[in-house]
Amino acid sequence: MPRYRGTVAYVGTGFHGWQVQANAARTVQAAIEEALAGLSGAPVRVEGASRTDAGVHADGQVIHFDLHEARDPVAVRDATNRRLPSDVRLLEVLVAEPRFHARFDARLKEYAYRWSRAPVVPPREAPFVAPISPRADADRMREAAGRLAGTHDFAVFAVRGRGRAEESTVRTIHSVWIVENENRLAAVFRGDGFLRGMVRSMCGVLADIARGRFPPERIAELLEAGDRRRLAVKAPAKGLTLSRVEYATSAPGPAGSPG
Amino acid sequence: MPRYRGTVAYVGTGFHGWQVQANAARTVQAAIEEALAGLSGAPVRVEGASRTDAGVHADGQVIHFDLHEARDPVAVRDATNRRLPSDVRLLEVLVAEPRFHARFDARLKEYAYRWSRAPVVPPREAPFVAPISPRADADRMREAAGRLAGTHDFAVFAVRGRGRAEESTVRTIHSVWIVENENRLAAVFRGDGFLRGMVRSMCGVLADIARGRFPPERIAELLEAGDRRRLAVKAPAKGLTLSRVEYATSAPGPAGSPG
Repeated sequence: MPRYRGTVAYVGTGFHGWQVQANAARTVQAAIEEALAGLSGAPVRVEGASRTDAGVHADGQVIHFDLHEARDPVAVRDATNRRLPSDVRLLEVLVAEPRFHARFDARLKEYAYRWSRAPVVPPREAPFVAPISPRADADRMREAAGRLAGTHDFAVFAVRGRGRAEESTVRTIHSVWIVENENRLAAVFRGDGFLRGMVRSMCGVLADIARGRFPPERIAELLEAGDRRRLAVKAPAKGLTLSRVEYATSAPGPAGSPG
Repeated sequence: MPRYRGTVAYVGTGFHGWQVQANAARTVQAAIEEALAGLSGAPVRVEGASRTDAGVHADGQVIHFDLHEARDPVAVRDATNRRLPSDVRLLEVLVAEPRFHARFDARLKEYAYRWSRAPVVPPREAPFVAPISPRADADRMREAAGRLAGTHDFAVFAVRGRGRAEESTVRTIHSVWIVENENRLAAVFRGDGFLRGMVRSMCGVLADIARGRFPPERIAELLEAGDRRRLAVKAPAKGLTLSRVEYATSAPGPAGSPG
């Protein structure tokens, strides 16, 4: 069966996260699978690079799926979008190598977390930013963020009780950029992978450091001692966006020659 | 009674425009009046600088209203926001001169119209941009837009059948900026006032000129001959945002000394 790769954007507000759930909750994966099934007349399984949590947004989630027969990828994109609800869109569909896997082949993921220091957040922005104290200082946040970069055991920042116990909790964060723009603050994380809940947990600590509740050294203490009692509250889901996913072999096969 | 001036932002998607309607439709003015009435325990009349149409957004609508007793304007802002639905927010409230009038005293209004040439518009942007052909050319649009600036009788671009017949249809547009950013196009209009439907009607023509359906000279033909049969379809409401309103005396009275 020909395999396709897609780039997906969604507003996470109205979804119970990415992954199909047994209780038939509204999820992004289920919405795309339903649209593709309607298109192809048969069930279609969609795999995403990242299982984003409830309320988390995506500008560049990557998926793969197989169709029973070869179709023009642009026609698949447009026909699927006509069947999707307005809060999720396939931005691009390409023909993929038959073994391409959106999750296992991902080499780098980029997440952006956005805050606003404005006394009132305009309604247009409000679904995508978390409020933060007007006193939050970008330089303090930047100093702390620098200590997150590198290869560490990030277990202290992970949500527990999911996944297999034998899975490694060591990850490499290549960079954390703190971007300041008037009343807006953002933290942009690029890394080889992130544990469940890890970005929001790190951002909760970064926010508390920025507003002076913890010193920037708190990051090293957390990474070294792994003492979860020193954590801050996780930052709210609505501030988080999966920006992009990168692959080693990003060049797709030519259209019309799947497999 | 002490008078207040407020700056309001709203996502127009869920509103039947600014103005209170006899049929109890959901309007921005009604939402703010209801919130202020709940706050003050008495009916409050809100006047807006611009009666935006159904579906049109605002980043900087300006209003005035009177309260029965003097209150701290920041407390008024925050208490009103707690009572407002999430798609409208008071960004700022200031004490105003007793004769300040949001509509009659406005000297300059700025509207932004946004288009996207992207084959698929991401869901986050879709409520705020109108799609336009990927062939739409910013330079052609800019050439045409330049011909709109100046003092003209804009009657050809106005929605008819509303307002009094004796009202002048002469307006001055100080500038029209065409801004291009990757797949995005925007037209930013600054002028002393705009007739009902005028910005969307001009934008319909600009879009058709940009994609090559009309020559840029079409603007002069419309303004000179006033032949409505040469108009394009009005651009959709969702692309339009009231960006700001300016006043001759923008300095408000000091907080706590209304009147």
